[in-house]
Amino acid sequence: MAETKTFDVIFEGVGTSSGKMRNDISVEWPMMKEKFELATDEGPFHGGDGTAPPPLALFCAALTGCLMTQIRAFAKRMKIDLRNVTVSTRLHWRGEQEGNDPYVTQPVGFHMDVDMETDASEDDRMALLAAAKKGCFLEQTLMQGLVVGHRLKLGDDWRDA
Amino acid sequence: MAETKTFDVIFEGVGTSSGKMRNDISVEWPMMKEKFELATDEGPFHGGDGTAPPPLALFCAALTGCLMTQIRAFAKRMKIDLRNVTVSTRLHWRGEQEGNDPYVTQPVGFHMDVDMETDASEDDRMALLAAAKKGCFLEQTLMQGLVVGHRLKLGDDWRDA
Repeated sequence: MAETKTFDVIFEGVGTSSGKMRNDISVEWPMMKEKFELATDEGPFHGGDGTAPPPLALFCAALTGCLMTQIRAFAKRMKIDLRNVTVSTRLHWRGEQEGNDPYVTQPVGFHMDVDMETDASEDDRMALLAAAKKGCFLEQTLMQGLVVGHRLKLGDDWRDA
Repeated sequence: MAETKTFDVIFEGVGTSSGKMRNDISVEWPMMKEKFELATDEGPFHGGDGTAPPPLALFCAALTGCLMTQIRAFAKRMKIDLRNVTVSTRLHWRGEQEGNDPYVTQPVGFHMDVDMETDASEDDRMALLAAAKKGCFLEQTLMQGLVVGHRLKLGDDWRDA
């Protein structure tokens, strides 16, 4: 039986507010010694200057790219000759608001259509997609669900919030 | 009592494979008539050319930016004078792999430290963070959990997968 090994993947980001609604976010992948300067903003309708995509656009690209990356990486391991892959993603949320209060949001449904350019059999394509779903960090996180932990700085202390 | 209204937020992305591991993802926010050209790639260690951030870096920026945006937007509604906000995010996943098989991933924990530059009271700061968490599309999605729906193109048909 093959040896089972585990590995950890840790990303760290520091976001600072700038502009009206712009956030500059420096993201590090310490293990790989990689660093990425990213940003989000909102369009004028939401009080921003439109200097960067909104956070949900980055998320849509992240989720789409994550599944695509696993499809391509695992095709090699499963000896499936994959020339190209196209993924169409649709993300739907709903917000509920009383008067002008801060609104409360929830997801309605996320859907992804996958089109592989390959001569692989239907079974092999289904198996490749199944493996990619299990390997996709973001899909697995969404499926399992996760309460994000928070701390708020109050004076010199960090308080759980 | 104030009127309760709901609103829908829908993002659509189309990703196409290019380069060795690069994915070009065109993301639209149809209601706002906004479109963003984004990309993901992997570094050489993972078989890519490092031409764009990896998907998890985009996700880290998306989550950080989403909470920050709600903190800033809701500060106005809650009449809290917020000069700046800094958020430090740490995302931890684990993968498990047998031999060279496709690996399976799961989240270990996500944590965010929030530092607000404001003269608001501790209670007001706690209330603002609480509202921002409930309004953050991504945190709410993670907390609720969600199975992403998939279809795979087989011949001329789309099959649930």
